[in-house]
Amino acid sequence: MERPRHQGMPKNTYMRWRLPLVCLLWEVAMIVLFGVFVRFGAEADAHWEEEKREMNLTSDMENDFYFRYPSFQDVHVMIFVGFGFLMTFLKRYGFGAVGFNFLLAAFGIQWALLMQGWFHSFKDGKILIGVENLINADFCVGSVCIAFGAILGKTSPIQLLVMTLFQVTLFSVNEYILLNLLHVKDAGGSMTIHTFGAYFGLTVTRVLYRPNLEQSKDKQGSVYHSDLFAMIGTLYLWMYWPSFNSAISDHGDAQHRSAINTYCSLAACVLTTMAFSSMLQKKGKLDMVHIQNATLAGGVAVGTSAEMMLTPYGSLIVGSISGIVSTVGYVYFTPFLESRLHIQDTCGIHNLHAMPGLIGGIVGAITAAAATEDVYGKEGFIKAFDFTGVYQARTPSTQGGFQAAGIVVSLLMAFAGGAIVGGILKLPIWGDAAAENCFEDGIYWEVPEDEESDVYHMHNPDKPASP
Amino acid sequence: MERPRHQGMPKNTYMRWRLPLVCLLWEVAMIVLFGVFVRFGAEADAHWEEEKREMNLTSDMENDFYFRYPSFQDVHVMIFVGFGFLMTFLKRYGFGAVGFNFLLAAFGIQWALLMQGWFHSFKDGKILIGVENLINADFCVGSVCIAFGAILGKTSPIQLLVMTLFQVTLFSVNEYILLNLLHVKDAGGSMTIHTFGAYFGLTVTRVLYRPNLEQSKDKQGSVYHSDLFAMIGTLYLWMYWPSFNSAISDHGDAQHRSAINTYCSLAACVLTTMAFSSMLQKKGKLDMVHIQNATLAGGVAVGTSAEMMLTPYGSLIVGSISGIVSTVGYVYFTPFLESRLHIQDTCGIHNLHAMPGLIGGIVGAITAAAATEDVYGKEGFIKAFDFTGVYQARTPSTQGGFQAAGIVVSLLMAFAGGAIVGGILKLPIWGDAAAENCFEDGIYWEVPEDEESDVYHMHNPDKPASP
Amino acid sequence: MERPRHQGMPKNTYMRWRLPLVCLLWEVAMIVLFGVFVRFGAEADAHWEEEKREMNLTSDMENDFYFRYPSFQDVHVMIFVGFGFLMTFLKRYGFGAVGFNFLLAAFGIQWALLMQGWFHSFKDGKILIGVENLINADFCVGSVCIAFGAILGKTSPIQLLVMTLFQVTLFSVNEYILLNLLHVKDAGGSMTIHTFGAYFGLTVTRVLYRPNLEQSKDKQGSVYHSDLFAMIGTLYLWMYWPSFNSAISDHGDAQHRSAINTYCSLAACVLTTMAFSSMLQKKGKLDMVHIQNATLAGGVAVGTSAEMMLTPYGSLIVGSISGIVSTVGYVYFTPFLESRLHIQDTCGIHNLHAMPGLIGGIVGAITAAAATEDVYGKEGFIKAFDFTGVYQARTPSTQGGFQAAGIVVSLLMAFAGGAIVGGILKLPIWGDAAAENCFEDGIYWEVPEDEESDVYHMHNPDKPASP
Repeated sequence: MERPRHQGMPKNTYMRWRLPLVCLLWEVAMIVLFGVFVRFGAEADAHWEEEKREMNLTSDMENDFYFRYPSFQDVHVMIFVGFGFLMTFLKRYGFGAVGFNFLLAAFGIQWALLMQGWFHSFKDGKILIGVENLINADFCVGSVCIAFGAILGKTSPIQLLVMTLFQVTLFSVNEYILLNLLHVKDAGGSMTIHTFGAYFGLTVTRVLYRPNLEQSKDKQGSVYHSDLFAMIGTLYLWMYWPSFNSAISDHGDAQHRSAINTYCSLAACVLTTMAFSSMLQKKGKLDMVHIQNATLAGGVAVGTSAEMMLTPYGSLIVGSISGIVSTVGYVYFTPFLESRLHIQDTCGIHNLHAMPGLIGGIVGAITAAAATEDVYGKEGFIKAFDFTGVYQARTPSTQGGFQAAGIVVSLLMAFAGGAIVGGILKLPIWGDAAAENCFEDGIYWEVPEDEESDVYHMHNPDKPASP
Repeated sequence: MERPRHQGMPKNTYMRWRLPLVCLLWEVAMIVLFGVFVRFGAEADAHWEEEKREMNLTSDMENDFYFRYPSFQDVHVMIFVGFGFLMTFLKRYGFGAVGFNFLLAAFGIQWALLMQGWFHSFKDGKILIGVENLINADFCVGSVCIAFGAILGKTSPIQLLVMTLFQVTLFSVNEYILLNLLHVKDAGGSMTIHTFGAYFGLTVTRVLYRPNLEQSKDKQGSVYHSDLFAMIGTLYLWMYWPSFNSAISDHGDAQHRSAINTYCSLAACVLTTMAFSSMLQKKGKLDMVHIQNATLAGGVAVGTSAEMMLTPYGSLIVGSISGIVSTVGYVYFTPFLESRLHIQDTCGIHNLHAMPGLIGGIVGAITAAAATEDVYGKEGFIKAFDFTGVYQARTPSTQGGFQAAGIVVSLLMAFAGGAIVGGILKLPIWGDAAAENCFEDGIYWEVPEDEESDVYHMHNPDKPASP
Repeated sequence: MERPRHQGMPKNTYMRWRLPLVCLLWEVAMIVLFGVFVRFGAEADAHWEEEKREMNLTSDMENDFYFRYPSFQDVHVMIFVGFGFLMTFLKRYGFGAVGFNFLLAAFGIQWALLMQGWFHSFKDGKILIGVENLINADFCVGSVCIAFGAILGKTSPIQLLVMTLFQVTLFSVNEYILLNLLHVKDAGGSMTIHTFGAYFGLTVTRVLYRPNLEQSKDKQGSVYHSDLFAMIGTLYLWMYWPSFNSAISDHGDAQHRSAINTYCSLAACVLTTMAFSSMLQKKGKLDMVHIQNATLAGGVAVGTSAEMMLTPYGSLIVGSISGIVSTVGYVYFTPFLESRLHIQDTCGIHNLHAMPGLIGGIVGAITAAAATEDVYGKEGFIKAFDFTGVYQARTPSTQGGFQAAGIVVSLLMAFAGGAIVGGILKLPIWGDAAAENCFEDGIYWEVPEDEESDVYHMHNPDKPASP
């Protein structure tokens, strides 16, 4: 091949010893740490019968499992099928999209159980886990899947595992600061998951900037069927987002309300996305990139406020705005970020997660600041914001202030963390591909032979097969 | 292009201003109406703590959310992935199938929340919503998705939004007549959703008859992978149909029974569909069109009776028959409807929804008429048919009569409504495509370029086409 | 056609009368038997109101429906989408994979309701069914889907229906021996579903050995998009496996615990699978076959012990080992089984179900034998192993012994049953295809034409492309 390359010599993408080593090392560490620390929580332990009696529970139904397990499964689908398939839109990176997402998420949930466990479920030297921990681990990994979207196609699986290790750690610290120190509400994670995850990923991809990426420009697009595979991801994210935002809300009205607000916001978002997708395109045609992504912004943008009394029409307004912002972002901001700021954002997470995440944080702060006892009821007010104990004296406007502080902290953590982790990932030992081999499954995967030949003389009849 | 066209001049399918205008207009109207009317119901409101005390509920588990949310999510999947992917079978209309279904359903659920809310959840000038309203909105939109199946590939997105507006309105009126005035049982919607939706759609497609549709005959078929995408839709509809039919049944035994009856009916339906698919084909091979569609008829056909004491073997019988009727319909009725009655039914909704819907209505009427206190128990009998208040005096046979009346009303509403709405959609302002451009995503969607060239010179340009 | 064939004359794969006959016969038998035997259980019967009073239940929530329905739906998805799509990896057998799986499972669940009903839910001459029966029927059919994996592409739909009839029967007998006579715990079915199903299928495929199968070698591989379709199956199996293993566990802590253990085991399994997939391949690239299959071994391997106090780190260990064993199996054992033992295992069920199933049985026996009152609590201990009534005197080590006996019984039933059923399927009346037509949808399915032409210049050099 005679193309000029940025780096003088071909990159070594040989994974045979490095990938197994990292995977096995990571897994052995997990086994040891789980052995030392992780045990079943009371509701999953065989002592539950006695526990039930002590807690005066009359029915097994009161086990948290039945309050949260259906939502957990929906969230689980979002992480593995939702994010995984959403990223299959690239014509030659379907294996990497689904497969690496699978790999990093499977590792990430283990590490998240530990990290979040130490911060939130640690008792007498043990981490006690139940279904809520599983949901939180999935949530934490969700932020890694988001960051993965920015660097999709440009990194090796080892880089992804290293990034997951660090990002889960930072996520847990940030989450602890927000939820425990600032006492902020963020059940659907507009700040902790989306804002943090997206700006972290954008910073990482900035540090990993590849000046010659146009060498693989031909592989950055989709083909007809890859766009349909991506719609599987989109729809599962869209449909189950009400479960995402309500999964760890308080039992009862809060879970119920979160689901309704999210449902409304997402519905509105689809219409404004379609409107702007058509409007911003000369020929007035719809663009699958917008439909696949911007329709989801409504879920992100009510992530903080869904469990509050946002009201259905409030949700429609937030959803409408976020669909517009996100679509406009795809048309105008993404090219700008790439050409001016050297931020190469493969999936456009800036439009789907970063901006809507910020909107979500702001809407959450405003909704909290605007809360009144009249709207929530006296008990509901205290319960909704957990104004008990040391937080008894908090007013809605103070709470709004802390919520806003939560956004700032998440942004700072994301920028600082992303810069450091990006620096680590830049080391030339992780086996990432050269620019002309980006977005190509053949580098890390056995690709079916006849299809390969196929694709290479297939999809581009007008391009000569060899230079 | 030299093909003769029915209409003298090419049609204007330019959407750039019209589609955004309609989407944004619709959405602004929704926001205003939601602002005026829609509020959280008691179980989703922050006052729930106080409400709980008043209602003497000891556990958050008694919140309707936990009775219905898992079923809601299943129904949600059916509407968006089920119907969306079922219609991707066309070789070049996958974006339109999934994307337009997404658009119309997202708008429809908002409008349905309002329409159904005014009829059923209106209190002190406000519509109070909870999870049951979300399910009902999805149901209502289901009937629009059904009608969409008849006109798939032949209409512009604006026509679909206009149709959705009117159909949701008419659906809600029809539903009100059936459930409130006739006091009819129809939890799975054989009459309200399937019979109404299908005959509405068939009437619309009759009014929109395109005499030159054979000009796009080459695009009306499937390709290998599009048939697999469609099977995703089929299976999700099939698997979650027990949730569909039980989602809004009474708590307890009624939900439980509906799920069992539907499970049985669907299982039987698969076998008779396979049998007749093979039998009615000279070479004895199975036809994916039948497997994709007729296997679902069993769910439609127990939509009214599933919550009654239909019994498992009754369900098997109904499922078996509906599979046969539906498959026979695909082989004999669909061509007849097209050639003789000028009803161009892209997805064959006459076979999947119309006829099985009628069967469902009739089976429901018979099952109701045959109910006895012996079979239901004294309390169960009253609860199952809600023979309380002014309906205290109803006997099973009267109920059967009212059920039958419900079928007739649904048919009349469908024909009349479909004719009017079809007339509106015939106006030459909505941007529908010319006959030779039907079933082609390229009209309304940005389609990935190299794939397009691909499909047309198809898969192996360098291999000689003949040996 | 000049290829030499093993058998002198072409095989008759004409299904037109045989397939309909078998389907309809089977279905009529089901209707009659359901009519005689099957009725609603108390919780699904309209008498529930009275029942509730008698059982002193205060809430409809206590209906088993609400404890198990969400898990049931997840299991349902695993059987129909999970297994169905997992097998679509073959380039030209997607219709057969999804469609025949659909057919056999739809028949199998009906027959399983009867067979399992006679053994476990028979009361006063009637089989009383509820949601747990639906789950068990799906489980039973799961074992048939597993066996189908071994013979995928090589059998006619009639053979599959015949095999289903016999395998469901044998499954139920084996299950009865294990659960009722040996009083063994096996909620996730490591023994009853996986070990039995896999060794049954392997024995059948051994009996049906096709010496000339290399004639269709070109169709035994995947293409790029078929591998992505298969990943849909993989992910749904992987994500919902916690529901599979917990679906019929005791209410409360046991369900909760099963889900957690399975979640952990599966997560670990992904990492070791990726590690060994890369390590065992010269070029160090990942192989989709391993990712699609071996990542699931962790679910199989905790099928018996998930509801016990296996602990999260125990689950990680079991999951890690099973991922390694399964991947190594794909690389070394499958070729060995084919070349030396003449076991042609299309999907590699030996690696995904047989070996991990054995591991699961053994881990279950060890975990049971190691149980102490200290770990389980006095009541929990009795409840977990159901040491009541005649089993009051059982000790953990006896239980461990019985668990081990359960493995042996399952193996014996599988070998004996598989040999007999394989013999029956070898009869030349069932319409299976000749060796060179294996793995080809065109034999039993109408395949879309233009795609066909495609495939036929690709895959069938002997048909002229144009007349």
